[in-house]
Amino acid sequence: MVNFLGNFFGNILGMTPSKPHIVILGAGFGGLFAARAMAHLDARITLVDRHNYHLFQPLLYQVATAGLPPSDISWPVRSILSQQRNVSVLMDEITGVDTTRRQVLLRSSNPEHVHLEYDYLVVATGSRHSYFGHDEWQTAAPGLKSVDDATLIRRRILLAFERAEMLDNDSAATAEREKLLRFIIVGGGPTGVELAGTIAELARHTLAADFRRIDPRNARVSLIEAGDRILPAFQPVSSTYAEKALQKLGVEVLTGVRVTNCDADGVAVDSAAGPQRIAAATVIWAAGVKASPVGRWLNVETDRAGRIPVASDLSVKGLERVFVIGDAATVLDTDGKPVPGIAPAAKQQGRYVGELITASILQQPAPPAFVYRHAGNLATIGRKSAVIEFPGLRLSGRLAWWIWGIAHIYFLLGVPSPLVISFRWLWEYLTYGRGARLITGVEEAD
Amino acid sequence: MVNFLGNFFGNILGMTPSKPHIVILGAGFGGLFAARAMAHLDARITLVDRHNYHLFQPLLYQVATAGLPPSDISWPVRSILSQQRNVSVLMDEITGVDTTRRQVLLRSSNPEHVHLEYDYLVVATGSRHSYFGHDEWQTAAPGLKSVDDATLIRRRILLAFERAEMLDNDSAATAEREKLLRFIIVGGGPTGVELAGTIAELARHTLAADFRRIDPRNARVSLIEAGDRILPAFQPVSSTYAEKALQKLGVEVLTGVRVTNCDADGVAVDSAAGPQRIAAATVIWAAGVKASPVGRWLNVETDRAGRIPVASDLSVKGLERVFVIGDAATVLDTDGKPVPGIAPAAKQQGRYVGELITASILQQPAPPAFVYRHAGNLATIGRKSAVIEFPGLRLSGRLAWWIWGIAHIYFLLGVPSPLVISFRWLWEYLTYGRGARLITGVEEAD
Repeated sequence: MVNFLGNFFGNILGMTPSKPHIVILGAGFGGLFAARAMAHLDARITLVDRHNYHLFQPLLYQVATAGLPPSDISWPVRSILSQQRNVSVLMDEITGVDTTRRQVLLRSSNPEHVHLEYDYLVVATGSRHSYFGHDEWQTAAPGLKSVDDATLIRRRILLAFERAEMLDNDSAATAEREKLLRFIIVGGGPTGVELAGTIAELARHTLAADFRRIDPRNARVSLIEAGDRILPAFQPVSSTYAEKALQKLGVEVLTGVRVTNCDADGVAVDSAAGPQRIAAATVIWAAGVKASPVGRWLNVETDRAGRIPVASDLSVKGLERVFVIGDAATVLDTDGKPVPGIAPAAKQQGRYVGELITASILQQPAPPAFVYRHAGNLATIGRKSAVIEFPGLRLSGRLAWWIWGIAHIYFLLGVPSPLVISFRWLWEYLTYGRGARLITGVEEAD
Repeated sequence: MVNFLGNFFGNILGMTPSKPHIVILGAGFGGLFAARAMAHLDARITLVDRHNYHLFQPLLYQVATAGLPPSDISWPVRSILSQQRNVSVLMDEITGVDTTRRQVLLRSSNPEHVHLEYDYLVVATGSRHSYFGHDEWQTAAPGLKSVDDATLIRRRILLAFERAEMLDNDSAATAEREKLLRFIIVGGGPTGVELAGTIAELARHTLAADFRRIDPRNARVSLIEAGDRILPAFQPVSSTYAEKALQKLGVEVLTGVRVTNCDADGVAVDSAAGPQRIAAATVIWAAGVKASPVGRWLNVETDRAGRIPVASDLSVKGLERVFVIGDAATVLDTDGKPVPGIAPAAKQQGRYVGELITASILQQPAPPAFVYRHAGNLATIGRKSAVIEFPGLRLSGRLAWWIWGIAHIYFLLGVPSPLVISFRWLWEYLTYGRGARLITGVEEAD
């Protein structure tokens, strides 16, 4: 309201007219859908992300396992929003928020920090993987959240096979060879399940004929889950199905096993059977996430995972016109349970906040409290199987895989070149090929 | 012959039977075609490359300008050769060759160097860009030879626009904005021409609607050539055509201009008009190449560009059963002129050496001296024009562009997924999109 009078008088007085300014932090599903929901609003919207692209995270495991090139699942934010003239995109890193002065602080390439003033702020900066207080495990066990994470994991997986092939063919190298051909995925959620299934297929099918000294089919893939079943967010019958399907692909599923250490030589675990070490050159972390540092930026309390508990209109208590959505927020559903940290939830929240801000600016009544509509749970196991739980429908097996595929192509509509990616999938499905098996870049440790 | 008797007696005496061992260094066009030419030979072939992929270099400029993802033009060497059972692929770096003991020294990940003994050696390690004694220019003006080069250049081009957009909109930032929106390509050969044309199109079409504070169409692209015309390997009429076509795309073509320095602020040049500085944030080096360190490895004399002059059977004088092909060699054509450093020449030389080694092993008469068959010169200028010089046929304009495209799709047959790449091209041609506009990785300087 203050802002509105400001605009009003500003215009009357011939001062620089200033439309209300909405700053959105993060160009993931939440931020993008918030921006799109305000497409027809007479306002200035600034969308800030430290990357120049929007990433379709549900398929990131395909990049990490050399199935898709990064650019098939990530598109420049600018080109997605180029027709929406009320949006400016800024590629920059957020260093803090001054909620008193209503400014976002950015680490710009300029010598001084750029201060971005806002009338409304939408924080949708997502999450990173969490090592539960053991950040030192990161180097040995990278997580999968960004394109650079995915190409790092891809490089490690492919290099492990290359290095095993380099070894002398004698028994002295047996231990080293086994270590190189051992792949450990920590965490039995959908990402862990999808990674494990795809790596097993990579070894058993795609790479099978490519080596001369080693047999990639001897690679061992282990999926470690601390709880008593994988896919804990699914119904137990789906967990059982997924476990069997993974075992059929050659994946060793270890439930009730807790990782107590990760280093360059593998992992240390603990379970009912007692502590144990597993030697492995490649360890991937899919066990937990924590929010981006939103609590520090906004100077408000967070929960244990760094998320900000928000009110039923996704606003932050004590701050005016500040909203947190997606993986950066803890949103409680009408039944009091937290809304899951998945793409459809972030999209719904983004759209809701966009509508709420629109109503506020147009001085219309605010929409009722946010209600989450759960669309379902999906996870694929290799290229032949999937588990799907829609409300009232549970499916597993080959049909579920095809529904998963069609659903994702449908999600991809609205992004650039969905046809190219569909075509590539079909091609790779038919040929069992994995077209993006490049080892690029270098690591310190290499 | 010694080897043959060795094999023969080895077999008779029940010792480990050892087939003749051919080591090929480099999995470019030369090395790959050499390996393929020996597909039916009863021998062991080891192909060594420091990357795990074969790169289709003629399209690398498309990766650098965000048109194609790297994996569309590079395929795992292993999968290309997986059906050829007499080939082992080793991903490793060459550190030297002991021509007395007939061993290749490799920097393997093992603590000790691996020594690879050979009966025949084919060196096809190609070239890198050359700064004519000014290697310190490399950081400021990267060249375009590898996938990592291409993604580095892509990042710099895209970041330049992002940073220009970050600047304040006032006149104080004008010089900085102009510097960020200035792109300099040094060297007027086909790579320089293709880069300049594509960057100009990127700015004028693809990015035109994506920014709010800057107008990408104001970007200036300059192609600097020391000689008196661009495309010096072509006929003068083609050079003139290419220059006009580039100018129509908005490229400034500077001929007779010599670069005397490259640094983070741009380039210093000299010409008939006297010395001058051009401020530019992005400089790309396409001016010269030098061979990989073959002279040092083999301990033989090279020419000024580091290439080894080879005999008419592509062997190295004074060394037995050692061949150098492609960009690492200076091969004289029947008319005494050097064979050009282009893909078809490397392929022909690879095939020739493969046949020669086959004849030697089978104790058949050696093939006559290598004769180069020149297929033609091709260069594209953006997406609408090209110049083509086939023997007896010179073409320019739109038809030439389509012939160039069809020729390249034809060259791509025999590699994995030619259909995917054709489909993608068609899509991008129709939509003017550039689908691989990702800024990935980080640079020290960022």
